[in-house]
This record gives sequence, structure tokens and C-alpha cells, in this order.
Amino acid sequence: MKKRLSPYMRLVDAEISRYLDRDVEELYKPLRNLFSRGGKRIRPALCMISCEAVGGNRRDALKAAAAIEMIHNFTLIHDDIADRSKLRRGKPCLHHKYGLGIAINAGDGLFSVAYEALSDAVIQSGKPEIIADITKATTRVCEGQAMDISWVQERQWDLTEDAYLSMIRRKTGALMAVSCKVGGILGGGTKRQIDALANFGMDLGVGFQIHDDVLNLTGDVKKYGKEIGGDINEGKRTLAIIYTLALCTPEEKRRLTHILDKEENSYEEIKETIEILNKYGSVERGANTARELIEGGKKRLSVLPDSPAKKLLLDLASYIVKRER
Amino acid sequence: MKKRLSPYMRLVDAEISRYLDRDVEELYKPLRNLFSRGGKRIRPALCMISCEAVGGNRRDALKAAAAIEMIHNFTLIHDDIADRSKLRRGKPCLHHKYGLGIAINAGDGLFSVAYEALSDAVIQSGKPEIIADITKATTRVCEGQAMDISWVQERQWDLTEDAYLSMIRRKTGALMAVSCKVGGILGGGTKRQIDALANFGMDLGVGFQIHDDVLNLTGDVKKYGKEIGGDINEGKRTLAIIYTLALCTPEEKRRLTHILDKEENSYEEIKETIEILNKYGSVERGANTARELIEGGKKRLSVLPDSPAKKLLLDLASYIVKRER
Repeated sequence: MKKRLSPYMRLVDAEISRYLDRDVEELYKPLRNLFSRGGKRIRPALCMISCEAVGGNRRDALKAAAAIEMIHNFTLIHDDIADRSKLRRGKPCLHHKYGLGIAINAGDGLFSVAYEALSDAVIQSGKPEIIADITKATTRVCEGQAMDISWVQERQWDLTEDAYLSMIRRKTGALMAVSCKVGGILGGGTKRQIDALANFGMDLGVGFQIHDDVLNLTGDVKKYGKEIGGDINEGKRTLAIIYTLALCTPEEKRRLTHILDKEENSYEEIKETIEILNKYGSVERGANTARELIEGGKKRLSVLPDSPAKKLLLDLASYIVKRER
Repeated sequence: MKKRLSPYMRLVDAEISRYLDRDVEELYKPLRNLFSRGGKRIRPALCMISCEAVGGNRRDALKAAAAIEMIHNFTLIHDDIADRSKLRRGKPCLHHKYGLGIAINAGDGLFSVAYEALSDAVIQSGKPEIIADITKATTRVCEGQAMDISWVQERQWDLTEDAYLSMIRRKTGALMAVSCKVGGILGGGTKRQIDALANFGMDLGVGFQIHDDVLNLTGDVKKYGKEIGGDINEGKRTLAIIYTLALCTPEEKRRLTHILDKEENSYEEIKETIEILNKYGSVERGANTARELIEGGKKRLSVLPDSPAKKLLLDLASYIVKRER
């Protein structure tokens, strides 16, 4: 899959570089450093492939794709601060490498430069509606992030599956959905095709996040060490937790919420948590939910004519829930 | 002056409220809290008055004005974190009231909502170029903030007046300039009028910031207590400091940079710093520079026909350098 995505990745990385190759090193150096670390670039790939899947040229969606990837990365810079993360793409987070003030501001600058790329995309395409679409999605991302942070901060445990999905549709779904939607718009797709792409992107985003949460709970705990169960230390509300809390004994519930509310947990506590989740089949149930979402998403693409781009979207969707750590 | 600005303030506050009156309390409540504290709303006023000064209706510029005020406020939320400030408009900064993660994200959400208002402004006006203009200004603001933070962090003292002006044109000038420029565009001004308004706004912004820096060094130190000399504790590079460092003895330079590099200073150290600055007439020289900039800016408006709006712009400019603490 990486090989099939690499032409899109190279295009978008070159485009982003053009926007960040400027003076005022104090702002742009940390940003160039972040992008030099690589990354999956799934959102810009989705945007350009969606453009091709409705008959457009990938370059028609390139500037919007670059903007979306910049928006995604600005949220990563800021989320890493909120989550007190130490590493991003295997290297120190920007707030550790350059300081808190520089990192917050670098995220802001990246957000702003993304809108420079979007303005250029509008001039190129004559389609100003893409700004409103991407902006609404970005607001949704911030809403989801606010819910996610507040639930941990307020020790909120009274959460339904619907509440979790509502959060994750915002935090992860909205930007993937608009990536596909805007690709469809810039490729000249029909209303029906554009809607299908948006819905496909939403299913993909939500499925992606749920699968990601599952990955954080599986694998060989000893082998992966600190990485496994990071969400447990951060107290993240995930589907496996919500499924379990609805089924487990009051004693198990007290134990789970106690561990999740703490900031640091021992290897034994992480292991104990994962065992309770597995006792109720919640991790496997989460994995199934992700797979079902992805399968549903793939069906939505039936309105698109067969093409290599459509095939790539379908394969990318399947790949997303097959990924391992 | 406050009384003459209040109709603009009421309009823009009502418009901003419309954008922030939404569900997802976790995001919008902190933002409504911030705006409920008031504020001068100088930038949106400049935008709407500039619109009137070229013959437009203030409502034509209302959504853009609201967007600019939202952008300004998102930078305040984030700057307060970088500066480790405790109070904003007399109440705890958002990061103190709601926590770091919520505050960073609230700033991001506000940035995004500003672009929703801008998208609406483009639909209303049919002038998409205002997005590119405001975005470029916002990028400049981030560049200026990066320079400002880095100079303190890297203990950079080798700074010229030009370097300071280059920073402050970005950090404060750019958004004031674009406020006036976009008002001129939305009011249907000529190219010459729009350019004059942009240059007026830049002079106003730079003069405003220099005057603000001077205010932080003047007044009755005992009476104002902690507020006086806050910039000295933060180690901010200001014009009075740069003027003094170019003139003072090596011993005074060592003393000044030592105090400015420290995070906490005693009342005596703040007083000593202000005395050295005054010995070289640097505070008064800064005040003069601000006044000259403002006078230059006012002359630029000669291309505008006489009107109550033009009179208000001129009076607002004079007011800005007459303000006291």
C-alpha cells in the first residue's frame, strides 16, 4: 500500500515544502522539521485519489490536499501538548524540541499557511465553496478535541457508544470526510458522487480511529513496552472501554476508572485493564465495529465508475483496518 | 472616544455571539466567557469605519470585522500561554480557568470559526480576495510572534531598531493594516483609497504597539504595582530598550540584559531599569516615535473625501497615542 501511495505523498510533500520555504526561521524551521519526519499523508492521498475517481487530475486537488495535510499537522502539534506526548514520528514533539510558546505558535502559523494554500486552490479552481467545507470540518475537529480533553479532565465516565461516536466523527471523521469530498468537488464529480465520497471518508475516518484505539490495546505488551496502553495512561475514552463499562461488575468498574483516571500506571495495571476488556470481548468487538464501518464505507463507492483510483480507495479502506502496530 | 466606538462594538459583539452560540459547550463556553469580558474591539471598528470612509455601509464589513476580532482573540489566548500571563481583561486567562489543553484548542476553534465568518463574508460580498488578504496578515502575526518569543528564549540582544520594527509590523501592524484594507475593499473603495487605508492601519498598529510598550514603563510604579514593568519581567524587546542598549555603558548593558533575561525581578530592579532607560531619554524617544508614526498615518488619509467616518479614523489615531494606563 505504501508503494501505491508514494506518488501522492511525493507530490504533496513537495507542495507543502513550497509553502514553508520562507524566511523567518523562528516560525518555519520547526515546521519544516516536522514535515521532514515523514508521515502517512493519508488525507491528501484520499483527496487526490477521490479527485481522480470522479475523472479529475490529481493535480487539480493538490493545493487543497496540501492544505488539509497542513491542518492535520497543526492539530497534531497542539494535541501533543494537550496529551503531554513526548514523541511524534519517533522524534521529540515540537514543544519539547523548541519550547511551548514556539510550538503553539508554529501550529497557528501552519493553520494560517494552510489557508494560503486554500486561497490559491480557490483561485486555481474557481470553487470558493471548498473553503467553507474545509473550515466547517476544522471546527468539527476542534469540537471533538474539546470533548475528548474535557471527558478526561472532568473524569466523565457516563458515556454511551453514541457519545463516543459523536466525538470521534468530529475529531477524526470530519477531516477525512472533507478530504474525499473536496477531492470529488475539485475533480468535477456529481452531487451524488461527492456525497458518497464524503460519507466514505467519514466511515473511513471513524473506522481508522477505532482500529487505532484497538491497536493501542493489542500486541505483545512486553515486546512493545511503553507504547501499548498509552491511551490507558492518558485516560482516553475508547470504544472498548465504553463497551466494557456497560457490562462489567461494579468492582471492575471502580478498578477500571481508577486506573484510567490516574496519569501513571504500572505494567501490571495496564495488563489488568486489558484483561478486563478482553474478558468482555470488548477489544475484539471494537475491531469488528471498525471492520463493519469500513465495509459499509466501501459500499458507498458503488456510485463511482470502476477505475484504478476507485480500486485504490477500496484497497486503502481495507488496508486501514488490517494495519498492525 | 469609547462612546463614539460603542455602536461598532455592539454590532460586532452581537455578530460574534451568533457564531459562538452553539452546542459542544466544551469548546464554545470558554470562548463565550472570553468575549463576555469586553475588550476595545479596535480592529473591527477600524474595519467598519474604513468601509464607511470609502462610502460603504458598516454592515457590509461586519462579518469580516467579526472574523478579524476573532483572529485577534485567538492570538491573545495563545500568547497568554506563551507569556505565562495570569490575567486577561481582569480575569484569569483561559489556560488558568479551563486548563492548558482546553485553552489551546479553544484558540484553534476560534481561528476556525473566524474562517466560517470569512466564508460568509465572501458569499455576502462576492469578494474572495479578502480571505487571501486576511490570511497573509495572520501568517505575518505568527511570524512576528515567533520572532518575539525566540528573541527572549535565545537571549538575543543584538537587535536594531529595524529588526524591532520588522517584528512589530508583523505582530501588531499586519492585522490592523488588513482591518482597514478589507474595510476599504468591502466598502467599494478605489485601489488608491484601499492602499492608503492599509498603510494608515500599519502606521496605526505599529504606533499603537510602541505606545503600549511606553505605557508599560511609565506611570506611578508604586500606584500600579505589578502592572508596571511587566514587559521587563517577560524580557520583551521594546524600542526603549533597543535605543538604550545602543547608547549606554558596557556596565549598564550587562545590568540591563541581566535583569531582562531573568524571569522575576524585584521592585528595585524594575525601577533601576526604568531609570537607565530614562537616563538616555529612551522612553520619551519611544513615545515620540509612536506620535510621528501616527501623524504620518493620518496624512495618508488625505486621499479620502471628508466624512464623519474619516474624522473618526483620524480621531481614533490621535486617541491611540494619548491613551494612558
